[in-house]
Amino acid sequence: MTQWFQLQQLESKYLEQVGQLYDDNFPMEIRQYLSQWIESHDWELAATNVSLATVRFHNLLAQLDDQYSRFALESNFLMQHNIRKIKRNLQREHV
Amino acid sequence: MTQWFQLQQLESKYLEQVGQLYDDNFPMEIRQYLSQWIESHDWELAATNVSLATVRFHNLLAQLDDQYSRFALESNFLMQHNIRKIKRNLQREHV
Repeated sequence: MTQWFQLQQLESKYLEQVGQLYDDNFPMEIRQYLSQWIESHDWELAATNVSLATVRFHNLLAQLDDQYSRFALESNFLMQHNIRKIKRNLQREHV
Repeated sequence: MTQWFQLQQLESKYLEQVGQLYDDNFPMEIRQYLSQWIESHDWELAATNVSLATVRFHNLLAQLDDQYSRFALESNFLMQHNIRKIKRNLQREHV
């Protein structure tokens, strides 16, 4: 179980604070659906290294594509829509 | 099965057009999770009657609260977060 899902066992007062960290700049869908990928990488290093950060960003977009495909296989129309929107927003803001 | 779920059987080229109707002004979560409630009301009438529209809007907020409670019972943290955000946005734009 990822840290992300462990964290969801916290009391609701703490979960409210967690919720405040996530908005359209970094939607909670990313944290949830890519939790394994996120937790298997060193982000402190990427935070101080532009070329590594760029690679990671493009990997993130590819991870979103993979997740989109999984939702397509499940015929999950709503989540396909959301993942596409999230990817489009990230590209608009950061590419 | 609601019309909303029937519609999801359409070919992907049509579903793309459907997807374009939904953005932050009217997120697809509302259409999906409140599909029964939406489809059991006459919206053409509400579109031309301000007092009815006002009642419906407040009913919509109450429906979102109910849906929030269902996600809370399921411990669905992501969807609780999304429903809360959607309700807050609606209140900011329309109250």
